Amino acid sequence: MTTIAFIGLGIMGAPMAGHLIDAGHDVVGFNRSRPAVDALVERGGRAASCVADAVHEAEVVITMVPDSPDVEEVVLSPEGVYASAKPGALHIDCSTIRPDVARKVAAAGVKLGVRVVDAPVSGGEAGAKEATLSIMVGGEAEDVEAARPYLDVVGATVVHVGPAGAGQTVKAANQLVVAGNIQLLAEALVFLEAHGVDTEAALAVLGGGLAGSTVLNRKAAAMRAREFTPGFRVDLHHKDLGIATDAAREAGVAIPIGAHVAQLMEALRATGHGELDHSALLLLVEQLSGRDL
Amino acid sequence: MTTIAFIGLGIMGAPMAGHLIDAGHDVVGFNRSRPAVDALVERGGRAASCVADAVHEAEVVITMVPDSPDVEEVVLSPEGVYASAKPGALHIDCSTIRPDVARKVAAAGVKLGVRVVDAPVSGGEAGAKEATLSIMVGGEAEDVEAARPYLDVVGATVVHVGPAGAGQTVKAANQLVVAGNIQLLAEALVFLEAHGVDTEAALAVLGGGLAGSTVLNRKAAAMRAREFTPGFRVDLHHKDLGIATDAAREAGVAIPIGAHVAQLMEALRATGHGELDHSALLLLVEQLSGRDL
Amino acid sequence: MTTIAFIGLGIMGAPMAGHLIDAGHDVVGFNRSRPAVDALVERGGRAASCVADAVHEAEVVITMVPDSPDVEEVVLSPEGVYASAKPGALHIDCSTIRPDVARKVAAAGVKLGVRVVDAPVSGGEAGAKEATLSIMVGGEAEDVEAARPYLDVVGATVVHVGPAGAGQTVKAANQLVVAGNIQLLAEALVFLEAHGVDTEAALAVLGGGLAGSTVLNRKAAAMRAREFTPGFRVDLHHKDLGIATDAAREAGVAIPIGAHVAQLMEALRATGHGELDHSALLLLVEQLSGRDL
Amino acid sequence: MTTIAFIGLGIMGAPMAGHLIDAGHDVVGFNRSRPAVDALVERGGRAASCVADAVHEAEVVITMVPDSPDVEEVVLSPEGVYASAKPGALHIDCSTIRPDVARKVAAAGVKLGVRVVDAPVSGGEAGAKEATLSIMVGGEAEDVEAARPYLDVVGATVVHVGPAGAGQTVKAANQLVVAGNIQLLAEALVFLEAHGVDTEAALAVLGGGLAGSTVLNRKAAAMRAREFTPGFRVDLHHKDLGIATDAAREAGVAIPIGAHVAQLMEALRATGHGELDHSALLLLVEQLSGRDL
Repeated sequence: MTTIAFIGLGIMGAPMAGHLIDAGHDVVGFNRSRPAVDALVERGGRAASCVADAVHEAEVVITMVPDSPDVEEVVLSPEGVYASAKPGALHIDCSTIRPDVARKVAAAGVKLGVRVVDAPVSGGEAGAKEATLSIMVGGEAEDVEAARPYLDVVGATVVHVGPAGAGQTVKAANQLVVAGNIQLLAEALVFLEAHGVDTEAALAVLGGGLAGSTVLNRKAAAMRAREFTPGFRVDLHHKDLGIATDAAREAGVAIPIGAHVAQLMEALRATGHGELDHSALLLLVEQLSGRDL
Repeated sequence: MTTIAFIGLGIMGAPMAGHLIDAGHDVVGFNRSRPAVDALVERGGRAASCVADAVHEAEVVITMVPDSPDVEEVVLSPEGVYASAKPGALHIDCSTIRPDVARKVAAAGVKLGVRVVDAPVSGGEAGAKEATLSIMVGGEAEDVEAARPYLDVVGATVVHVGPAGAGQTVKAANQLVVAGNIQLLAEALVFLEAHGVDTEAALAVLGGGLAGSTVLNRKAAAMRAREFTPGFRVDLHHKDLGIATDAAREAGVAIPIGAHVAQLMEALRATGHGELDHSALLLLVEQLSGRDL
Repeated sequence: MTTIAFIGLGIMGAPMAGHLIDAGHDVVGFNRSRPAVDALVERGGRAASCVADAVHEAEVVITMVPDSPDVEEVVLSPEGVYASAKPGALHIDCSTIRPDVARKVAAAGVKLGVRVVDAPVSGGEAGAKEATLSIMVGGEAEDVEAARPYLDVVGATVVHVGPAGAGQTVKAANQLVVAGNIQLLAEALVFLEAHGVDTEAALAVLGGGLAGSTVLNRKAAAMRAREFTPGFRVDLHHKDLGIATDAAREAGVAIPIGAHVAQLMEALRATGHGELDHSALLLLVEQLSGRDL
Repeated sequence: MTTIAFIGLGIMGAPMAGHLIDAGHDVVGFNRSRPAVDALVERGGRAASCVADAVHEAEVVITMVPDSPDVEEVVLSPEGVYASAKPGALHIDCSTIRPDVARKVAAAGVKLGVRVVDAPVSGGEAGAKEATLSIMVGGEAEDVEAARPYLDVVGATVVHVGPAGAGQTVKAANQLVVAGNIQLLAEALVFLEAHGVDTEAALAVLGGGLAGSTVLNRKAAAMRAREFTPGFRVDLHHKDLGIATDAAREAGVAIPIGAHVAQLMEALRATGHGELDHSALLLLVEQLSGRDL
C-alpha cells in the first residue's frame, strides 16, 4: 500500500483515482470543487483540503489537470506540490500539456529532490473507467519503472518513450492522428451519404480493410447516429492541437494535414460546438457541404 | 465447378485467379502480356488467346484491370466482354474505377442480358495473396448474392453496399481514408523523430489507443525502416484520389482533408516516386521538413 | 464594318455586343431567351432566330456561353456554328471552358476551314460594361491578330498567350489567383474585426503596401458592408476552379493553395450561396469563425 | 530639429535613420555591430555606445529590431530604453512583433511616463530606401499624431489603425495576405509553365484584370527569372506567420488558407531556403511538382 496524493478529480481523474483505491492504495484526493472530493471519499479514499494537505505525506503524487498553466500553478506555485512534497517523492503528471512545460516542471522537481515523469494518457473517459488507457511516459528510466506499478493499475498499455517531456510529445502526435482520423471518417461518411450508399455496410467493409481504425470501431456508430455526448471534448482537443502545432513549429517540421485539421477543430469550436465530443467534426463537414440545412 | 473467365492477371488478379482454381473452378485466363497467362496455366488454369476466347463459354467473368478506360475497352469494345458473353452470364468487375463509368458499364450489361456487379477490393497484394481482401459490392441484390460465392474465395469481408456503382463509391471513400491515415502517420513519425523520441515505443502506445489503425499496424514498421517496396503504388493511389475528388465534387460534398491529401499524393508522384508504395508519403513529409538532406 | 454573329447575350455578352455595335459593326445576335435578343435590337443590332441564322453570313462569330458543354453544343452540334459558318470565318470563343475542350473545338474548326481563337475574359460585369476587360487569347498568331480589332473594342488588355487552348489555361490560372486573393482578404478582414481593429484604416494601409491587390481595391468596401450582389457568381467561379484543378492534375502540377481554395468555394456553394458574388467567401470565413451567430 | 535615438540599424533601420537625418533631425544611432553605427555617422548622424547613451537625451526613440524577445530586451531590460528615457519621451517601435508583447511594452512605457506607439512597416528594403513604406500605427490618438511627422519622413502611407498593439495586428494580417499572394502567384507560374504558356504575356494579362496585385507587379519578373535575392527573407516571414497564426488562434478566428500558407513557408525554410527572398515559395511549388529535377 502506497500513500498517493491525487490532484484533479475530473472526468478522467476520478475513475483513475478509484482504480488506485481498488488496488489497495491509500489515496488522498484534492479537487477545486468539493463534490468530486466527497465522491472519492465515498469510494474509499481520503479528502484533502488543499494541495499541500494532500501532498505532504504522499510517496506518490499524481496530477491530472486541464492545461499547462494549471500544471504550473498546481505544481510550481508556493502553495503547490513541490513546496510540500517529501524529498524522494515520485510525481506522475498525467495532464496533457506542452512538452516544454513538462521539461520545465521536471527540472524544477529534480532541483527539489522530487522524481518526475510526464505520463499523459489516451483513451478518453471510457478508457479511464475501464482502466484500459494508453499511457506514454517520459522521464528517467528508473523513475518510469517506479511509476509503472501505479500506471498499470489504470492503463493497458504503458510505454516509456524517452526523457522528460517525451510523453507529452508523443501525446501531441497522438492527438494529431486522432483528430485526423475522425475528420477523414467524417468526410467519408458525408461523402457516402451524399451518394446514397448504405453507410452501415460501407463502414463494415472499410473497417475490414486498410481503412480500419480504432476511431472507426469506437466512433462511427455514434457519428452515424449524430450522437456527440463527450467522450473527449472539442475544447480540449483544440487545446491539444495548439500544443502539437507549436511543437511542430519548434522542431521545424511540416505537418500540412495536422495543421489543416487544427484549423477545422478551431472552426468547430468557434461555431459553438466546444462542449461536444470531438467526433462532432462530422457537423462541420455537413455544414461545409450544405447538408445541415 | 463454374467456368470463370478472368481478365487481368496482374499483381492482384493473378493470386485471385489462383484461389479460384484452388477452390475447384475452371478458370480461363487472359492478360495482355503472355507470361501471366502461362503462370496461370502452371497453376492449373486454362489459357485464352483473347477476351472473346476467354469469355464465350464462361458463366462468370471477372475483370481486374487498372483504370476506367481499361474497363471500357475490355468490356464495351467490339472485341470486349459483352460482345462475346453468354446471355445470363455474371460479370464481376473488381477494378477500381469511376462510379459513373461503373454505372454505365452496368447499364450496357443489362441491355445485353448480362448481370453486372462492381466489386472493387481493398487489402493490396498481401490481401490478394492471403485471400483476405475487403470487397465492396454494388449491384442488384440477387446478382450480388450470385457473385458472393466467388468473392468469398478471395475475400474475408464481402459486403453489399448499394446499387450499381456503389461499390466504387465506397472504394473511393476507402482510398481517401487510407491516404489520409498514411499521411497522418507520416507526419507523426517525422514529428516524433525530430523531437528525438523513440518511435518504436511511441508507435506501440499510439497503436494501443484511439490513434490505432490498420495502416499503423501494417505500414509503420516499414515506414520507420524507409522500406517502400509496393504493396500499392503511388501512381494507382493518385488515380484513385482523382476518382474520389471528382465524385465528391459531383455530389457537392466538401472534403477538405481528402482534397489536401490528394494534392500531397500528386506531389509525391510528381517528385518521381510514383512507383513506390503509397506509404512513401513519409518521404514527402521529410522533404517538406528538410529532413531529407 | 464587319458582320458579327454574337451568340450568348447574358450579363457579359450583352454589353460586349453593345460595344461592337457602337464601334460601327453589324451585329446579329442570338440568345436562348428572346428578351436578350430584343434588347440587342433596341441597341441597334439585328435579331437571329437560331444559331444558323446568326452565323450563315457572318465574317466573325463570337460565342459567350457558360460552360464547356454549352460551347460543344452551340459550336459543334448539327445545328451549331460550324455547320453554318462561311469558310474562312473567324470564330472567337470568349467563354471560359476547359483547355482540352478549347483545343478540340479549334481542331474541329480548322478541319472545316474556320479560324478559331479562344479568348476568355477577366474583369466581370463591370469590365464588360466599361469595355476594360482583360482578354487572354490562344490560337495561331495571324488569327489572333485578325481577332484583335474586335477584342480591342471590349477589352483594355488583349494579350496573345500561346496556341489554341492557351487562353483558357491562362484564364484558369487567373481564376485560381482571384479566388485565393478574395479568400485571403476575407480571412484578413475577419481576423482584424475579431481583434477590434478599424478595418477601413487597416485596408488603406494594406492596400498601400505589398498586400495591395485589385481584389482589395474593388471588393474590400463591399465586403466590409456585407454587400454580395454579383458581379461574378460563386457558381461560375466554382465551375472555373474545377477546370483549374483538373488542368493542374493533367499537367502533374501541385497547387496546394489553389486546391484548398477550390474546396472553400465548393463549401460556399454547398451552403446555399451559389448566387452571390464570389467575395461572399467572407461569409464562409465568418461561419468557420463562429462570427455569423 | 528633434533629437532622435534610433536603435537597430539593419537593412530596414539604416535607410530609415538616414532619411531622418536628411530631414534635418539630430539622429543618435545604436546597433549591436559597430560598422552600422559608423555608417550612420558618415551619413551625418551621431554614434551611441549603448542603448542608454542613445536614449538619455532623446525626445523620440525609434526601435527597429527583429523579433519580440529583442524588443523586450532592448526596451524593458535594466539597460534598456525605458530605464534611461526622459519622462515624456515618445517611443516608436517599428519592429514587427506579437501584438500582446506590443501591448505589454506600451503598458510598461505608460507607467514610466513614456508615450508609446507600435508602428510596424511594410514595403521591404526598397520601401525603406525610397521612403515609401506603409506604416500601420497603434496607440493613443495624440501619441500617433506626435509620431506622424517622423513616420511621414520614411513612409508614404501612415495610418492610425487602433489602440496599442493594433499596428501589429494589422501587420500580421498584412503578412498573411502577402505570403498568400506570393504562393498563389507561384502556383500560377508553375501551372502556366507546365502547360507551355508564354508566362510573360500571361502575367501581363493577369495583372490587367482582377488577379492583379502589388506582389505580381513587383515580384513576378524576378520569380520568372528565379532571382531570389532578398528583399524580405523567408526566415522573417516565417516568424511573422507564427505571430499571425497565434493571434488568429487567440481570437478564435479560422484562417484556413493563412494557416496552410504558414505551413508552406515553414517547409520552404526547413528545406534550407530561409535566407532567400520570400518569393522563393516558387521553389517549393516546383519541388512539389517535380519540376526541380
